[in-house]
Amino acid sequence: RDFGTETVYKRDYILNTIAQIFKLHGYGPLQTPALENLQTLTGKYGDEGNRLIFKIINNGLDDERNHQKAQDALQNILQGKTDINLTERALRYDLTIPFARYVAQNKNDLAFPYKRYQMQAVWRADRPQRGRYREFWQCDADVVGSDSLLYEAELLNIYYLAFEALQVPQVSIKINNRKIFGALANAVGLQNNVADITVAIDKLDKIGLDKVIAELALKNISEANLEIIKKYLTISGTNLEQLETIKNLLGNHELCKEGCIELEIDLKNLKTLNPNCAVQLDFTLARGLDYYTGLIVEVKTTAVQMGSIGGGGRYDNLTAMFDMPDMSGVGISFGVDRIYDVMEELDLFPKNITENELVYFIHLDAACQQKCLEIVSALRAENIACDVYATPAKMDKQLKYANKRNLQHICIIGETELQNNTITYKNFSTGTQQVVTLPELIKLFK
Amino acid sequence: RDFGTETVYKRDYILNTIAQIFKLHGYGPLQTPALENLQTLTGKYGDEGNRLIFKIINNGLDDERNHQKAQDALQNILQGKTDINLTERALRYDLTIPFARYVAQNKNDLAFPYKRYQMQAVWRADRPQRGRYREFWQCDADVVGSDSLLYEAELLNIYYLAFEALQVPQVSIKINNRKIFGALANAVGLQNNVADITVAIDKLDKIGLDKVIAELALKNISEANLEIIKKYLTISGTNLEQLETIKNLLGNHELCKEGCIELEIDLKNLKTLNPNCAVQLDFTLARGLDYYTGLIVEVKTTAVQMGSIGGGGRYDNLTAMFDMPDMSGVGISFGVDRIYDVMEELDLFPKNITENELVYFIHLDAACQQKCLEIVSALRAENIACDVYATPAKMDKQLKYANKRNLQHICIIGETELQNNTITYKNFSTGTQQVVTLPELIKLFK
Repeated sequence: RDFGTETVYKRDYILNTIAQIFKLHGYGPLQTPALENLQTLTGKYGDEGNRLIFKIINNGLDDERNHQKAQDALQNILQGKTDINLTERALRYDLTIPFARYVAQNKNDLAFPYKRYQMQAVWRADRPQRGRYREFWQCDADVVGSDSLLYEAELLNIYYLAFEALQVPQVSIKINNRKIFGALANAVGLQNNVADITVAIDKLDKIGLDKVIAELALKNISEANLEIIKKYLTISGTNLEQLETIKNLLGNHELCKEGCIELEIDLKNLKTLNPNCAVQLDFTLARGLDYYTGLIVEVKTTAVQMGSIGGGGRYDNLTAMFDMPDMSGVGISFGVDRIYDVMEELDLFPKNITENELVYFIHLDAACQQKCLEIVSALRAENIACDVYATPAKMDKQLKYANKRNLQHICIIGETELQNNTITYKNFSTGTQQVVTLPELIKLFK
Repeated sequence: RDFGTETVYKRDYILNTIAQIFKLHGYGPLQTPALENLQTLTGKYGDEGNRLIFKIINNGLDDERNHQKAQDALQNILQGKTDINLTERALRYDLTIPFARYVAQNKNDLAFPYKRYQMQAVWRADRPQRGRYREFWQCDADVVGSDSLLYEAELLNIYYLAFEALQVPQVSIKINNRKIFGALANAVGLQNNVADITVAIDKLDKIGLDKVIAELALKNISEANLEIIKKYLTISGTNLEQLETIKNLLGNHELCKEGCIELEIDLKNLKTLNPNCAVQLDFTLARGLDYYTGLIVEVKTTAVQMGSIGGGGRYDNLTAMFDMPDMSGVGISFGVDRIYDVMEELDLFPKNITENELVYFIHLDAACQQKCLEIVSALRAENIACDVYATPAKMDKQLKYANKRNLQHICIIGETELQNNTITYKNFSTGTQQVVTLPELIKLFK
């Protein structure tokens, strides 16, 4: 995908809006290189991930001393393995592993809790299809090195503030706590197979309650326990009502107590931070990823047909794989490409963020063009973006050019304007036209 | 290279400053993907370039149907060739070729002249060393599809405005015109070997006049012609004086006449666009790249020992290699990494662009922390970036944390502050301390 002028402006609008809110809350930017050592990435994303990582072929293979090794290495690669004699480096596959590597490498210099945000491209060797790209952007914020629940409320509020700033309508922020899943698993005798429950429940939206229960029934769960699961999955009401219900259902399990306390503290902190920020408890929210251990969150808008536009949660041991244990953290992620699609579909981008605002000058002849140069210099000194047709040409041709660039604000310098020291300004979006002086023009766009 | 908080803020400061000036002049952003088809890049950067391009190994090689092809392909690669059966894709090596590809692919949708800027990473398989990285950023602006000289003055002025905005001192913008080299080559009988002259003259700064002449003497040039070259290389004086001298020396050559007219028009247009923008004519300026055909420009600062921090020129036929002939253009490039080093060395980054401005809250106990939460919410609503220590801890520990993050503005809520509804604000860079109310604090940072 190439991103032309308008697309970059719109994407930057999304990214800058979110970055501003991260900064407001004390998150600092991090950028890691596109190339990581392959061994940093291998084994971190499962079999599927290993296959989809883009690997760089080593340079210098034309050196004869490398030939035999390269040939041997290729045999490994043809077997689906990796081999540093042919590929040592790979492209960033997500932002989480490079973040963990960075934290582990810089543990002595970073102040913990370390709050970082990161907005960068990642690459996956997927077959491209609608909404799925080989190169796409991730946009993450995490706090690592603290188990304080305060950051959970803070990140939930950041979701609220970001979508409010972007004016995305009908946004729902759903939360749950993985510990409550754990309690449910304990209650129905699946404590060693929590994933069975999360995977099944994750399909609730798609296949409905009955089929989820039918699927779980195959796991050798008793009728009584299936009944508990059914009750669990149909809990409804306000957040407080749901908390009461779950306590009645699973409150004798330690994990349920812990999960409820954490959720209650999150809701209380959130009220302090921002009384307007509403989140919905949803005990059926599972989120597929294995590594979440506490809060989980998912953001959707019901205004368009679209998957989640954000998600995250608390994890333990982010950096354990880099020999730095016990680093709890919590993070959220914005689905930039989907947010872009939502905003495009609902026409939510402000009108003044693209090149349309550029003031364009066309002219009758060389003398008029010279006058245009003086005027654009004056406008640029006032920080007003503008441009001028650079060669003598028929006005019609100049207008056609401005039109092809989608420019709305056209200023014309002809003989009359040159004599009277004025500018004819046409606004092609409103259809209005006026004759102004330079100071008046500046005032219009300042 | 990982870029942490402070580095990203400083790099963004440079990139945003330059981008603003591009936009002010009607240049729109373009972003091309990191992965290009290998065949798009192969052969465009010379032998050296072919070697240094990072190539991606094809996915799906573990499919048996690909084994034989991959093994055959490896033999080609071991011979230093390319083969799409093992690598089809490669990493962006510069911004010019992807730009040319984009222009050729979108020729029917783009309005020409097309003014674009592009700021993206590029990758080269160089051995990393000081000031040279495997991943580095380029920052280019080009106008393509017009031979209007006006854009040359515009881009020279953009150099001036950008370094003025960044406050880089002692910047010199040197210009020359390749046509004048052509005239010199004609005059000394090297019309078929212009590169000999440009390559030799390019070394003038490093090896001095005598050695350049000695090198050229080996090319079978007569004494009389060496005398002309010597005269050429020692032309000095104001821009106008130099133009007079070169006309006396080479004015009977058509190329010299053309080059002088172009330079004179550039200087005149520049005066109209910005009387403050001074550029120096320098007929010894060569710039190595073959593809420049008219104006060439190079930017340096004499304030530090450093190569050029910008360069560019006019080229013909940018897109000819993509079957789109006769696209003249002119472009400039900013050396972002070097500009960063210059600004770091001269301490030119504004103090308020990094995380230092963050207002940090520390507290005595849980009640004080609760108060802090209310205050940071109020500050954030006023768009003031702030943060609060998230767990109860000794004040000392909290201060140490703030110190490690290099934070200057520390607000303390203790028992007294809680009772009096005040905030003790310490500025650690000035050493001052004051007790303020919330509205007063907001006023301090608004």
